[in-house]
Amino acid sequence: MALSQPTHDSKAKFLDAALHVIRTKGYAATTIDDICESAGLTKGSFFHHFKGKQDLALAAAAHFSAKTDGAFANAAYRDLPNPINRLLGYVDLRQQLLRREIPEFTCLLGTMVQETYDSNPSIRKACDKGLSGHAALLEQDIADAMRRRKIDADWDAKSLALHIQAVIQGAFILAKSKNGSDVAFECLEHLKRYLKLLFNHAK
Amino acid sequence: MALSQPTHDSKAKFLDAALHVIRTKGYAATTIDDICESAGLTKGSFFHHFKGKQDLALAAAAHFSAKTDGAFANAAYRDLPNPINRLLGYVDLRQQLLRREIPEFTCLLGTMVQETYDSNPSIRKACDKGLSGHAALLEQDIADAMRRRKIDADWDAKSLALHIQAVIQGAFILAKSKNGSDVAFECLEHLKRYLKLLFNHAK
Repeated sequence: MALSQPTHDSKAKFLDAALHVIRTKGYAATTIDDICESAGLTKGSFFHHFKGKQDLALAAAAHFSAKTDGAFANAAYRDLPNPINRLLGYVDLRQQLLRREIPEFTCLLGTMVQETYDSNPSIRKACDKGLSGHAALLEQDIADAMRRRKIDADWDAKSLALHIQAVIQGAFILAKSKNGSDVAFECLEHLKRYLKLLFNHAK
Repeated sequence: MALSQPTHDSKAKFLDAALHVIRTKGYAATTIDDICESAGLTKGSFFHHFKGKQDLALAAAAHFSAKTDGAFANAAYRDLPNPINRLLGYVDLRQQLLRREIPEFTCLLGTMVQETYDSNPSIRKACDKGLSGHAALLEQDIADAMRRRKIDADWDAKSLALHIQAVIQGAFILAKSKNGSDVAFECLEHLKRYLKLLFNHAK
């Protein structure tokens, strides 16, 4: 066990470096040298863990999803009894995260799929898996909220969960274009307003 | 005049090629060779018109905005008397455009700023100019709709115009991740639902 620890640590360092570097400069512009420099590790170590940049990207997508999904699953708002408040709590936490630097709050998956959807089907599928999986975490709360409000709608829980993700992804793009997160915060205010109107929820 | 025509045509061909190639594979992965091949023109001709890839990107951003803003300004829904219907008409047209191929309906500006916001401030600013300028085209209709409904809100026309752009940008990312536009169509249905709820607009 003690012997395997350094290997494990270095793999985690490469994955965290991938999250930071790719979210800073995009997938295509990121080189293996950039990743090694950011991780503070050698190219020999990199190729011990990964076959190449695509292999790293696929592992980084899974690492990013596990980290993000875990953070939201364990957040305090999950204990709120009203499913509508849990949905609003999810968006509130997204807004809190906007206080960080842009590469720390934006989405690895949205960033990578934006460039690679056509040229790299493996990365596209990994991004879709992570994005769809994260959206699915909201579906139960949405379904519960719909039942609570006896909503018989021409939309379903899945489509609203994906819409919430779309607003977040688009808010990140506007934050990047304005080099600041105020605009993203306001977009998420509109998203909360939509959820409150949809579920006839008191302010 | 006749002599300048070919020059003009070739510049337009490079710009249209940039729109297609960058929206297909992203900015960093696009080479000047890709652009020349897509335009069916030589590298000599390219460097007659542009100093390099960044210069092309800046001109392509302006070209994209002029084309897109012009198409929406001249669309039939602009003649609708009710400003709320004009806003819904804008989103309807966005939904109609989703029938095209992904590189034809997605946004050059959102694609480029996603990767370059940190590494290339000139491109970031050009993308912000185009995205903010396009959003501003919706502000008058939103302000008119707010007056019509006597809405005294804790949000303003500008923030809603930017939110609309965020939903569209995020919907494009989901379309790329799923390699199809159905999910984007549904996101824009949610956007229309929000606008109707916000302005208390009959279905």
